[in-house]
Amino acid sequence: MSAQKTFSLAEVAAALGLEFKGRPDTVLAGMAPLSSAGPEHLSFLSNIKFKSTLQSTMAGAVILHPNMAVDYTGNCLLTDQPYLLYARASALFDPFVKPRAGVHPSAVVVAENIHSSVSIGANCVVEEGVEIGEGTVIAPGVVIGRGSCIGKYCYIHANVTIYHGVNIGDECIVHSGVVIGGDGFGFAPGPNGWEKIHQLGGVKIGNKVEVGANSSIDRGALDDTVIGNGVILDDQTMIAHNVVIGDGTAMAGCCQVAGSTVIGKNCTLAGNVGVVGHITIADNVHITARCMVTKSILQPGSYSGTFGVAESTEWRKNAARFSKLDELYRRVAFLEKQLKTKDEGEG
Amino acid sequence: MSAQKTFSLAEVAAALGLEFKGRPDTVLAGMAPLSSAGPEHLSFLSNIKFKSTLQSTMAGAVILHPNMAVDYTGNCLLTDQPYLLYARASALFDPFVKPRAGVHPSAVVVAENIHSSVSIGANCVVEEGVEIGEGTVIAPGVVIGRGSCIGKYCYIHANVTIYHGVNIGDECIVHSGVVIGGDGFGFAPGPNGWEKIHQLGGVKIGNKVEVGANSSIDRGALDDTVIGNGVILDDQTMIAHNVVIGDGTAMAGCCQVAGSTVIGKNCTLAGNVGVVGHITIADNVHITARCMVTKSILQPGSYSGTFGVAESTEWRKNAARFSKLDELYRRVAFLEKQLKTKDEGEG
Amino acid sequence: MSAQKTFSLAEVAAALGLEFKGRPDTVLAGMAPLSSAGPEHLSFLSNIKFKSTLQSTMAGAVILHPNMAVDYTGNCLLTDQPYLLYARASALFDPFVKPRAGVHPSAVVVAENIHSSVSIGANCVVEEGVEIGEGTVIAPGVVIGRGSCIGKYCYIHANVTIYHGVNIGDECIVHSGVVIGGDGFGFAPGPNGWEKIHQLGGVKIGNKVEVGANSSIDRGALDDTVIGNGVILDDQTMIAHNVVIGDGTAMAGCCQVAGSTVIGKNCTLAGNVGVVGHITIADNVHITARCMVTKSILQPGSYSGTFGVAESTEWRKNAARFSKLDELYRRVAFLEKQLKTKDEGEG
Repeated sequence: MSAQKTFSLAEVAAALGLEFKGRPDTVLAGMAPLSSAGPEHLSFLSNIKFKSTLQSTMAGAVILHPNMAVDYTGNCLLTDQPYLLYARASALFDPFVKPRAGVHPSAVVVAENIHSSVSIGANCVVEEGVEIGEGTVIAPGVVIGRGSCIGKYCYIHANVTIYHGVNIGDECIVHSGVVIGGDGFGFAPGPNGWEKIHQLGGVKIGNKVEVGANSSIDRGALDDTVIGNGVILDDQTMIAHNVVIGDGTAMAGCCQVAGSTVIGKNCTLAGNVGVVGHITIADNVHITARCMVTKSILQPGSYSGTFGVAESTEWRKNAARFSKLDELYRRVAFLEKQLKTKDEGEG
Repeated sequence: MSAQKTFSLAEVAAALGLEFKGRPDTVLAGMAPLSSAGPEHLSFLSNIKFKSTLQSTMAGAVILHPNMAVDYTGNCLLTDQPYLLYARASALFDPFVKPRAGVHPSAVVVAENIHSSVSIGANCVVEEGVEIGEGTVIAPGVVIGRGSCIGKYCYIHANVTIYHGVNIGDECIVHSGVVIGGDGFGFAPGPNGWEKIHQLGGVKIGNKVEVGANSSIDRGALDDTVIGNGVILDDQTMIAHNVVIGDGTAMAGCCQVAGSTVIGKNCTLAGNVGVVGHITIADNVHITARCMVTKSILQPGSYSGTFGVAESTEWRKNAARFSKLDELYRRVAFLEKQLKTKDEGEG
Repeated sequence: MSAQKTFSLAEVAAALGLEFKGRPDTVLAGMAPLSSAGPEHLSFLSNIKFKSTLQSTMAGAVILHPNMAVDYTGNCLLTDQPYLLYARASALFDPFVKPRAGVHPSAVVVAENIHSSVSIGANCVVEEGVEIGEGTVIAPGVVIGRGSCIGKYCYIHANVTIYHGVNIGDECIVHSGVVIGGDGFGFAPGPNGWEKIHQLGGVKIGNKVEVGANSSIDRGALDDTVIGNGVILDDQTMIAHNVVIGDGTAMAGCCQVAGSTVIGKNCTLAGNVGVVGHITIADNVHITARCMVTKSILQPGSYSGTFGVAESTEWRKNAARFSKLDELYRRVAFLEKQLKTKDEGEG
């Protein structure tokens, strides 16, 4: 549910704990980028690259670094962390209103340990033994399997599926289409084909975790799959069984982590990074978009492994030579030897 | 719902606006490829490569270019665009029957602006303020959030999730598992970890857009994410916040476009192309499968950036040398210099 | 639903058809890895690499190769295939209990050919003409379109969507969020943009197939998309229209197969392999992670085509030279020619 919210500049400043310059009673009814903001909008400038936009913006007020505010005559809120304060202001202006507490009559709720402040939407299914903590919202169409636990102040968006034996901490957000606790991909080759290894572990997710739309987090084979506190996963992330992800690690869209890999704290994986199974990645490792990590990374730092596009004819010319790279290397070595021999012959 | 449809050759010709050769009363009850078609099937030949199949086909009738029809004695429908006419014939023979208008008693519909011709399936949830236009079908299990609008003659397949503040045009098809309007991946680093940037924008989708199964289109951070008219997205596409996609652009399966990138009109992205954030791609740009686009592309044309597979030992041999490519380059430059010096010494 | 199961060592041995050493009445209440197992756990040793762990394990019993059991004084179950027997033991200890037969009152079931032993969960929708065989479970929120057939002893997990005209064999497992039978990506360029090619084929899935969470398997354009017996697909797999996959083939997470490609039997595709359309892959082809297959592979064997990550500065240095690889190749050829000329001159 949503509803427009308005605040005066003074109210925004108070809510964010910031000093401000300008007219305190300026009414702000939303947020917009500097370039398209009108007098009713709060905006922000965090990237010095866009400083020139500041002169032409129509914004009702701007969140600014004090250095940037020196020449600015409009209303502004002052902070040395404008991007962080934009994040906090966005919460203030978010028109989304949480649904009311209570269980929709069409929901099928067998569980008994549901806090009275929980909201369970239409057509949800909550199986036996499920526990849901204070203030959590379960949106319509969510299915939660037997014995799973969801903490306080979580938001589980519509049509999420949580299998049995899944444990989610407090203040987590799970977006629509996410599947948590599906079977890990475990099979043993048998005489008549693949034999399924039943996945007896669960999934354990910490506090303040956000999981993007249509992501999949598989249950563990024997032990649990573990997602640390403050981990943020973008849409269509795929986390295989028994992966362990350290606190504060962020993965952009479509990353894939194969089974039993351990990723450290405060790592960042850019879009569509793939990590093979059974390796370890240290804390503070940053991997650029679309790379494949095939070996453990034990040192913090930045790692890359992909090419950007080139014009197709150009690319194909070089790519064709790639299949001769080993040969080329040997030919160069041979040339060097020849030249050396010649030099010695002449010497 | 589905039901077999049959037409006479003359009826098909009339429906498609084509001339035909052969027996007008030939009964056609479906479509099949030339190689497996029987006398009850309509088929087509669009690729001259398969011309030989024409001689052996058992098809009841074939959609053909007039040039191909010269030697063909069977029934045929004549057009200089056989592939396009195959598309139109496929619509004719599609046995799928739209469900009847009306709201299933198990659906939870709070919204009031639902056209009387709309069909809302079992267990759907349609929140307050939603508008749905004439002739649109909402299949079972769909959840539509507060205030979203869906145009006329759309088909929203089962178990789709549409968040609040999403605007979909006319004649769109959204396949099952799609999530539209989930939060973009916006976080600011704060003193205690990531702080969520509330995503205050929406999603705006034009007319005649098709979105493949399990795709995700995120809502904008401040402004909207925008998908133009006639855009076609295959399964598991991931469109991040504030992306803008121009009219007529097509993306094959599993493409990923990162935040705030602007893609032009009539582009094609082959399977699993990834595009980084905050760049611009011109109109009529074509990108081959699995590439990563890391910089703006301002000229129309074809772009590539990936290798096909090779036998593993072969590949590894060359790949190992790749890590020495810069060294190799320098060694070649040195050889050239040596040879030049030698030449001059001898000269 | 789930419930803890306990067995004596003798019972486990009898159930698995294995000889054992040790106390037959040892009570086993679950499975755990050697390193974390307690006296109540059954464990296994399949990889000789972890042999040392055997000396320190607290496991109540261990599945072992007889060679490994020689020095082991604890309880053990003997087999020359410990990994396979671990798979079978995992089935024994799986606490997951199938829901009871019967149709939940909130399910909307129009179909009549549903075996009396089938379990249909809350809020499912089963359309006209659907057939479901003995012992199959349809978990909550599943939607099954008109006329689709599901065999015996399948488990269709929550929130799966199966379109009309889909045929699934016996003993299949389909995980949550999977979409089977969505439209293939077929469009013809028309005078006013893309014109949809209606997808008239269906999907045919064999016996003992498992499909991972959030995967998409599209229906055929004219003929069916076909998945053979014993095929296993991990999460987020994307199978396009008219793909044919041979018996026993396995695909790890996020693989993508484009339209009309035929993949043989007993192939393995590691994580995120992409296969272009309209090609053929022979039986027993193994493709390493993240490769793109651009041409038919007619010989069994192992194929590769990607780079692992390197430290970013290092990678960029080599990657920059890649765009000069063709030039480099020519320069080396020229050096060779110069040297040859020089040699001949001196000769």
